[in-house]
Amino acid sequence: MADQKTCPPLTSDSVRAAYPLISPYIHRTPVLRSKTLDRMASTAQEESALKGTAFEGQKPAAPVFRLHFKCENFQKIGAFKARGAFHAMLRLCSELGIDEVRKRGVTTHSSGNHAQALALAAFTLNIPAHIVMPSISTKSKIAGTRAYNARVIFSGSTEPERVAVVQEVIKATGAILVPPYDHPDIILGQGTVGLELEAQVRDMAEGSAEECSPKQGSSLDAVITPLGGGGLLAGTAVYFSDKPCTSVFGSEPSFEGGDDGRRGLAAGSRIPEVSTLTIADGLRTPVGEVNWTVISDQKKVRGIFSVTEEQIKEAMKLILERLKLFIEPSAAVPLAVILFDEDFRKLAEKEGKEKGWDVGVVLSGGNTSVEAISRLYGTK
Amino acid sequence: MADQKTCPPLTSDSVRAAYPLISPYIHRTPVLRSKTLDRMASTAQEESALKGTAFEGQKPAAPVFRLHFKCENFQKIGAFKARGAFHAMLRLCSELGIDEVRKRGVTTHSSGNHAQALALAAFTLNIPAHIVMPSISTKSKIAGTRAYNARVIFSGSTEPERVAVVQEVIKATGAILVPPYDHPDIILGQGTVGLELEAQVRDMAEGSAEECSPKQGSSLDAVITPLGGGGLLAGTAVYFSDKPCTSVFGSEPSFEGGDDGRRGLAAGSRIPEVSTLTIADGLRTPVGEVNWTVISDQKKVRGIFSVTEEQIKEAMKLILERLKLFIEPSAAVPLAVILFDEDFRKLAEKEGKEKGWDVGVVLSGGNTSVEAISRLYGTK
Repeated sequence: MADQKTCPPLTSDSVRAAYPLISPYIHRTPVLRSKTLDRMASTAQEESALKGTAFEGQKPAAPVFRLHFKCENFQKIGAFKARGAFHAMLRLCSELGIDEVRKRGVTTHSSGNHAQALALAAFTLNIPAHIVMPSISTKSKIAGTRAYNARVIFSGSTEPERVAVVQEVIKATGAILVPPYDHPDIILGQGTVGLELEAQVRDMAEGSAEECSPKQGSSLDAVITPLGGGGLLAGTAVYFSDKPCTSVFGSEPSFEGGDDGRRGLAAGSRIPEVSTLTIADGLRTPVGEVNWTVISDQKKVRGIFSVTEEQIKEAMKLILERLKLFIEPSAAVPLAVILFDEDFRKLAEKEGKEKGWDVGVVLSGGNTSVEAISRLYGTK
Repeated sequence: MADQKTCPPLTSDSVRAAYPLISPYIHRTPVLRSKTLDRMASTAQEESALKGTAFEGQKPAAPVFRLHFKCENFQKIGAFKARGAFHAMLRLCSELGIDEVRKRGVTTHSSGNHAQALALAAFTLNIPAHIVMPSISTKSKIAGTRAYNARVIFSGSTEPERVAVVQEVIKATGAILVPPYDHPDIILGQGTVGLELEAQVRDMAEGSAEECSPKQGSSLDAVITPLGGGGLLAGTAVYFSDKPCTSVFGSEPSFEGGDDGRRGLAAGSRIPEVSTLTIADGLRTPVGEVNWTVISDQKKVRGIFSVTEEQIKEAMKLILERLKLFIEPSAAVPLAVILFDEDFRKLAEKEGKEKGWDVGVVLSGGNTSVEAISRLYGTK
C-alpha cells in the first residue's frame, strides 16, 4: 500500500482529485427515488410499534423525508468497494511505478466484496493478485475472485490465521498489502460515492431545491451510509466536510455488539474488536484506525445509529419489493434507521420542519443470493 | 372500452401516436446491459446439459449475444401494464368524453398487475374504478389496489365466477369494462415498450451500430418478450412491423400446457383455454383474440419458444444476482429462452454469425415478494 506519509490529506479536495483517476474504471451508478418509500418514511410509526424498544412511551416523530437512493449495487463487482480498490491501486502505481507493482503483485485477505474488488482492479491493470480467503468461503465467491485471474490462497477463518497466510504470501512473493478499509487511499476512493450522489441530486433538483449557499452547493440535508470498517462512511464524511448544510450519519446493526462505532463514540475511543454474526455480513468488522480519526470527528460525522436484525430485514424487504433493487442486507441498514430509529426521526422532524429533509441513502452493494434470501425470509 | 370499430389500426404509426398520450403518466424505464450475462449467453451449453431435452445429441449452438434489458419492473405499479391501462383510459375519455367516463366509472377483473394498473390510471384521471378480485388474492395485492382508491369487489376464483361479478357491477353502476389484454387500445399502449427500447438502444449505439437502412432505423436484431394474454408481445410486434431488420419473438412456460401460443401456431389456430400453475404466474392466461391476429402473423412474430420451470428459475436467479434487479418469474422467461433453447440459439448463430445479435429483452415486471422467492429457492 502507498506509504501513508505520502498520501493526500483527508479533505474534500482529495476526494475530488481521486474521482478523475478512478472514473474510467467504475460505473457512475444511478440515483433512484420512490414515492412509496418517501410516504412510508414520512409517516409516523404507530405507538404500539415502539413497545419493547428504547423509545417506548414516546410520541412517535413525524418527519418529512425525500429519499435519494445511490445504487452501488450496480457498481462493478456489485459493491462500492471497487472505488477504493481502484484508487489504492492507481495511487500505488503512481508512487512505485507500475513496473514495480507488476513485479511484486498485490495481496489482501477478504472473503467478501474487497476480494473481488481488488481482483478486478489488479486484473484491469494487469497486476498479479494473491487473495487469501477462508477455506469455508462460498464457492461463488471463490469462483468470482478467480474469474479475474487472481490466485486464491486458502486460510483458516479467524483473523490471526488469515493474517499469518498473508504474511507468508508477502514473504514469498514481495506482494504489496492492500487493506480493505483502513487506509487514506481507500477512504478517498470510497468518498467518490458522496461526490457523485451530491452532483446527481443537484442535477435532478435543477435549481428547484434551495441551496444553503452557492458555494456550499449541496441540496442534500443529510447522507446516511452503512458502517462496517468505515471506508464508506469516512470517505463520504470527508467529501461533505466542507459542506456544512449536509449532515453525514452512520448506521450499524446492533446485534451481538455490531454497533461498535456507536459504542465507541459513547465511550470516547475506538472499539478494536467485534464478534457478531449479524445478517448484515458486510458490517461485522471493527472500525479501522484511520477511519476512526474521521468518524469520531463530530464536525464530519454527526451521529451513528443502530438497528435490530428484524428492522434490517423489514427495510431490505421494502427495497427489494418496492424499489425492485436486489441488495445485500448491509445495504438496507441506513433505510432501517430512517424508518425505525426515533432519535434520528426526531432530529429530522425538528430540523427539517414542514419542508423536510432530502436524504442521500447509500445502497452499498448487492452481493447476496436467492438462497440467502430464502434463509432470511423462508418459513420453516 | 372504446369501440373496436373506432380504434386506431394495429400499426407502428398507431403505437407512435399512443406514446405522447401516455408519456406524461408513465416512466421511461431504463435499459441495462451486463457483460457477465452477455458472456454467459454467448457461451455454448455443455452437451451434457442437453441430456433429457428435445435437443439431446445435438451439437450445442455458439451464438453471440449483446443483451439489452428493458426494465419494466421499474414501471409504475411495477409492470408494463400501466402503459396499456393509461392508453385505454385516455382513449375512452377522448371517445366518450371524460364526464361520461367519470359518471360511469370503469371495471375489470384481475388478481394481478392489471388490477393495480387500471386502479392507478383511474385514480390519476379521477375516475371511479370497480375491481373484481378473487377473494383468495393476497392481502398485499388487495391493499395495493385499494391504495389507489379503487373499490374492490370479491368473487370466486374461476373465470365464470369472476365474469359473473363483473356483469353485476356493470349492471349496477354502468361501469365500462377495460379488459387486461384483448383490445387494440391495450395492445397499442403496451407497444410503447418496443418504441422506447428501440430508441434507447439506438441512442446508446450512437452510430456505432450498423443500421439496416436509415429508414428502417433499428439497431436491434431481435426483441423477445414474455407471452401470456399477448398484449405485450402483440404491441411490440406491431411497433416493429415496419422494421424488417428486427425479428420479434415470444416466450412462454411449457409447464402444464402454458405454451398455448406455441401450440396454437403449430395447430394453426388459437388455443382458447389454458390451465397451468406455472411459476410464471403472469403467463397463465390464453392468448386473446385480437392479440392472436398479430401473433399468428409470421411477418410480425417470427416464433414462440417455451422453457421449463427449472430454466425459468435459473434465468430469474441470474437476473436477481447478476443484474441486481428484482423481477417476477414471468419476466425471466425471455432470458431462459436465450440461454437454453437450442432452436433459438441456432437461429441466432446462423443469422448473427461472428457479429452476433443485439437482442432487446423485456423484463416485464417486478411484482413478487421475498416470501415467494423463498418458496422458489428455499431448501425444505
